[in-house]
Amino acid sequence: MVQKESHDHVNDTDLDNVEVISIKDQVISQAVQRPPAKSLLQTFSTTSKETLFPDDPFRHFRNKPSHRQAIMLMQYFFPILDWLPKYKLGFLKNDFIAGITTASLSIPQGIAYAKLANLPPVVGLYSCFLPPMVYAIFGSSRDLAVGPAAVISIVLGTLIREDLGPEVTDPRAHLSLAFTSTFFAGLFQFSLGFLRLGFVIDFLSHAATVGFVAGVAVAVCLQQMRGILGIQNFTKKSDVVSVLHSIFRDPAHWNWRTVVIGICFLTFLLGMRQISKRNKKLFWLSAIAPVTSVFLATVCVFATHANEHLSIVGQLRKGINPPSFKELHLTGPLVSKAMKNGVIVAIIGLMEAIAVGRTFASIKNYHIDGNKEMIAFGMVNMTGSCMSCYITTGAMSRTAVNNSAGCKTSLSCIFMALIVMVTLLALTPLFHYTPNVILSVIIFSALITLIDPVEAYHIWKVDKIDFLACLGAFLGVCFQSIQLGLLIAVAISIGKILLHVSRPHTATLGKIAGTSIYRSIEQYPKAVRIPGVLIVRIDASIYFSNSNYIRERLTRYIEEEQGRDKLPGESALKYLILDLTPVMTIDTSGLHVLGEILRNLNLMEMQLVLANPGAEVIERLHRGGFVDILGQRWIFLTVDDAVHYCSMQLPRDNNVDNHEDVSECDVIVQIIPKFGL
Amino acid sequence: MVQKESHDHVNDTDLDNVEVISIKDQVISQAVQRPPAKSLLQTFSTTSKETLFPDDPFRHFRNKPSHRQAIMLMQYFFPILDWLPKYKLGFLKNDFIAGITTASLSIPQGIAYAKLANLPPVVGLYSCFLPPMVYAIFGSSRDLAVGPAAVISIVLGTLIREDLGPEVTDPRAHLSLAFTSTFFAGLFQFSLGFLRLGFVIDFLSHAATVGFVAGVAVAVCLQQMRGILGIQNFTKKSDVVSVLHSIFRDPAHWNWRTVVIGICFLTFLLGMRQISKRNKKLFWLSAIAPVTSVFLATVCVFATHANEHLSIVGQLRKGINPPSFKELHLTGPLVSKAMKNGVIVAIIGLMEAIAVGRTFASIKNYHIDGNKEMIAFGMVNMTGSCMSCYITTGAMSRTAVNNSAGCKTSLSCIFMALIVMVTLLALTPLFHYTPNVILSVIIFSALITLIDPVEAYHIWKVDKIDFLACLGAFLGVCFQSIQLGLLIAVAISIGKILLHVSRPHTATLGKIAGTSIYRSIEQYPKAVRIPGVLIVRIDASIYFSNSNYIRERLTRYIEEEQGRDKLPGESALKYLILDLTPVMTIDTSGLHVLGEILRNLNLMEMQLVLANPGAEVIERLHRGGFVDILGQRWIFLTVDDAVHYCSMQLPRDNNVDNHEDVSECDVIVQIIPKFGL
Repeated sequence: MVQKESHDHVNDTDLDNVEVISIKDQVISQAVQRPPAKSLLQTFSTTSKETLFPDDPFRHFRNKPSHRQAIMLMQYFFPILDWLPKYKLGFLKNDFIAGITTASLSIPQGIAYAKLANLPPVVGLYSCFLPPMVYAIFGSSRDLAVGPAAVISIVLGTLIREDLGPEVTDPRAHLSLAFTSTFFAGLFQFSLGFLRLGFVIDFLSHAATVGFVAGVAVAVCLQQMRGILGIQNFTKKSDVVSVLHSIFRDPAHWNWRTVVIGICFLTFLLGMRQISKRNKKLFWLSAIAPVTSVFLATVCVFATHANEHLSIVGQLRKGINPPSFKELHLTGPLVSKAMKNGVIVAIIGLMEAIAVGRTFASIKNYHIDGNKEMIAFGMVNMTGSCMSCYITTGAMSRTAVNNSAGCKTSLSCIFMALIVMVTLLALTPLFHYTPNVILSVIIFSALITLIDPVEAYHIWKVDKIDFLACLGAFLGVCFQSIQLGLLIAVAISIGKILLHVSRPHTATLGKIAGTSIYRSIEQYPKAVRIPGVLIVRIDASIYFSNSNYIRERLTRYIEEEQGRDKLPGESALKYLILDLTPVMTIDTSGLHVLGEILRNLNLMEMQLVLANPGAEVIERLHRGGFVDILGQRWIFLTVDDAVHYCSMQLPRDNNVDNHEDVSECDVIVQIIPKFGL
Repeated sequence: MVQKESHDHVNDTDLDNVEVISIKDQVISQAVQRPPAKSLLQTFSTTSKETLFPDDPFRHFRNKPSHRQAIMLMQYFFPILDWLPKYKLGFLKNDFIAGITTASLSIPQGIAYAKLANLPPVVGLYSCFLPPMVYAIFGSSRDLAVGPAAVISIVLGTLIREDLGPEVTDPRAHLSLAFTSTFFAGLFQFSLGFLRLGFVIDFLSHAATVGFVAGVAVAVCLQQMRGILGIQNFTKKSDVVSVLHSIFRDPAHWNWRTVVIGICFLTFLLGMRQISKRNKKLFWLSAIAPVTSVFLATVCVFATHANEHLSIVGQLRKGINPPSFKELHLTGPLVSKAMKNGVIVAIIGLMEAIAVGRTFASIKNYHIDGNKEMIAFGMVNMTGSCMSCYITTGAMSRTAVNNSAGCKTSLSCIFMALIVMVTLLALTPLFHYTPNVILSVIIFSALITLIDPVEAYHIWKVDKIDFLACLGAFLGVCFQSIQLGLLIAVAISIGKILLHVSRPHTATLGKIAGTSIYRSIEQYPKAVRIPGVLIVRIDASIYFSNSNYIRERLTRYIEEEQGRDKLPGESALKYLILDLTPVMTIDTSGLHVLGEILRNLNLMEMQLVLANPGAEVIERLHRGGFVDILGQRWIFLTVDDAVHYCSMQLPRDNNVDNHEDVSECDVIVQIIPKFGL
């Protein structure tokens, strides 16, 4: 109340009668306000909205007639209804060219990635046909090229091999578990999006992902040595040690034909990529290089009858996707394993798709709704699993090609799918003589780009703990297993949050001479302490997990301050000002600790002063009865107000110097706005 | 550089030449400083110190001669060396009386709690003898009465019963697993303290603990109905439904003798407690009530030969603790279960002991070091497990009695232990005829106090999610099992942290008229927006888990601001000022997102401006190369500086009004320090 009055007082005065305001009134400029009261229901709905709908996807619907809202709702769930009616004929050429280019990359990659997942090559082609069409209906990215991707393929393949154990070698069991896992992945993706829980994928940090992906890339590249060196008897394990052992166990068994083909085409692919990198206009060189390699290698093998000496892809079934819902096992002993696989590949797939989608949306300046994308991928994978497709996502390399080729809308995806369809209907016999080594080379050249030491160095430079997560995930994948790597990545990421939350930063503040600004003494060594007053800023919300730490830290600050050598005549420490600006919320444990601090300070004949508590904090301090104990007059709007008030209460003799200094400096800076601004 | 110069400029000027400073110079008062550079090793050691030694326990050691340091180190690890030499003879009477009073409560409670853990009653007495003596050597609390406690006893008993399964009824297997679990509990407690990882116990929030303890109390109280009603055939399950079913299945089998004895003594115990509560001087009434009840009930049973009709304690072995290290199973199939039990009871035990210890330390104004206490309890339980004691901790009720009885030092614990020793050596035959019903009554009356609806209401009032954790833990324990309750408590507590971290609070700021203060418009409805400028404060560190959210939220703020009805002549939104005061740190994901925001703003022809980044943030912005992209000149020390600078860049016509208003008000408030302060 006192503060409220003085606040009005200050506002009502003018320059002439400033001198008659009592000193007490001068320093208390504003009271800390409780936010307007809200009912429990209001609080709940606000919180839910901020948690689940931070992007407020329906904000454009307001103030629209209801039939318009219905159309917008349809367009929201089926984005194709939004862009197709607006489609300009001029886009058609762009989309068609982009479709052809992307298809020429998709077909060899699709076959190769299906092999990576231990599935028949034709399943990779199926997965390049249906999923892009479904995505074109539900997805909101204009650039994403949907299809099989390297990381999820190897993850799914590894998981299934572990589930079935080394003794089960029936490819049909493998296929059936792959479809079932894909179905659950789709269901999980759909549920995440529909329940607006998309933020769970944010819990894998960027750094951990970099390490994880690099680890997978290293492991997979090494595994491709099997194909390139033509080794027959190879380990089933995925860790680097076993794989290296398999490679170098018996160099005599390396197949010189595959080595020659491998090295030639690897040089060709990497060379084309280098050219494309240097000259952006030649991007199509690296895009069509894989299909060219496949064509050349196949022709070579066919012409030289080399198929007797190296393994080839063999018979591919003609015709488009056969239905596969009969192979989904939604009951039985493997269901829980399929669910687990589904969750893992769903999350990895979404992370890739959404990261890629956002990157290109940001380049073209349109918006991607993460939760809506999850619904789209859920639909893609659920439909796919019923039509002989395995898990698909938005693949980085093909999306980049799609974008470079000038795609305008998802129609390019449909064109791509149609070309894959033509391939499936008519061209599959052509792949009969394709040597497997060429698929290994394509995988190798695609995955080698996922190893990003520059980014790892950047992470090291910026944040050491992030680097630890990156390194942990990398080593976990390389030397143990993909699951362990993922587990390490998540554990370090969440552990870091918890550590930060339980050991929040605190800083003692000092006044920057000549201003009314208070800043960390550590960061601004020129900031000066105020005699008799200790100012501490708490840089985090006060929770059960850090409240004990905060109490101990404050006790130490006070002891250190009391132990400092005093200037002659300087008064003892009388006030502890807590700057609560960064404190977003406080829970019951925090209130307990604040109460203890208050009691301990009183025992030491010191006074606790709070500065600038936020809306939620002041509300809870009131509701918890803390304000009644502390007294409203010890809560200030700014640190400066609090310092002025406290300084006045200190014995006068040792404060005169300080105050004169302060006022003089203040005037210099604060007089400025009078002139012209 | 520009800012640095202007900063010096402002400081060098005096009132006379203020008018000649260019407008640009006037508004930029201070540059944001990078903190002094630190080497990796320095950073690492600072971080480790803040994480593991926040209380800096060895700070008093500095600047002391080395022999003094050696003595202090011994005193640190053996606090008895600190207080015993300083002991005053005047304390002896207080400690002795406190010891007797506490012993009179400990003996019946010890017997009763051992039964709660399904252990022979004499083990409860053993656990009241050795552990307090060991604690007196290692512990730093002057008040803690160490011994068996209700919650850990029931938890240990339940866990062991589950481990052994219903078919194993061999009491020796039970005892042996109890000792082994106690040993691992001690080892875990010791390791936590020694590795300074005590903060892990902070992850069980106050609210969750309240719910968990209340749930345990309800479950245990209901179970005591078995003893009070004299039911023979009782469920082994601990959930409320099974227990209630057992109680009311067959009221005909209730034993009227036990019911009469039970009701009489329960009334007596609760009555004494009420009297003690009303009159603090009569605290000893409730302290000696249990032992009186035991005495009276035993005499009654002995005199009336009622032992034929109700169950009695029976033969107790005479003599002090026999060694039990031969019964510790450190190998074999049960070791992993013993470890799991050990970890659970260790954490619950520490939470109780440290909470109780801190409460009384705070009352008497001395300091408790949590990690040191953990070492002490680790020693207590490891020694105890080798000498026939089961898990012990600092019990709330006995500590309160010890304190009320006027204890001065841990010597009261030693006196208590000596009295228990006398009991063990000479008085155990007296307990032969003690009816079990009286033990149930003692447990019932002790546990009923742990149900605290007032605190639950307080939690509800302050924090709804805390209340959810409280309720979840309560219901989990009541209706399922102790482990589930604990799991719910931890999951909700950590889930809350993660939710808060991934959905941080953000606020649009406005200027409080007549000041240079910027506050949340939601909290301070009078705060006014600055035309053409959007000011957003981010109230948390920017992590991988919230960086996407922050981008989406900012996008929405900008769209909302652009969609607002403009005043005539008001300029379009040109600047986004991010107040980074509460942002303690930023990781690589955060930097990525900041970069994206910057690019998106540039596409919209807007400018990103940062205000007051903290030491770690500015350091990382530099190291991540973000400052180079943004430009140092767009980073300001205060929001006010940033606003002034931005406002000046906006088209002049629509700003004149606003600025004149601002400057006039500013002068009124800012002129104040000139007068007298």
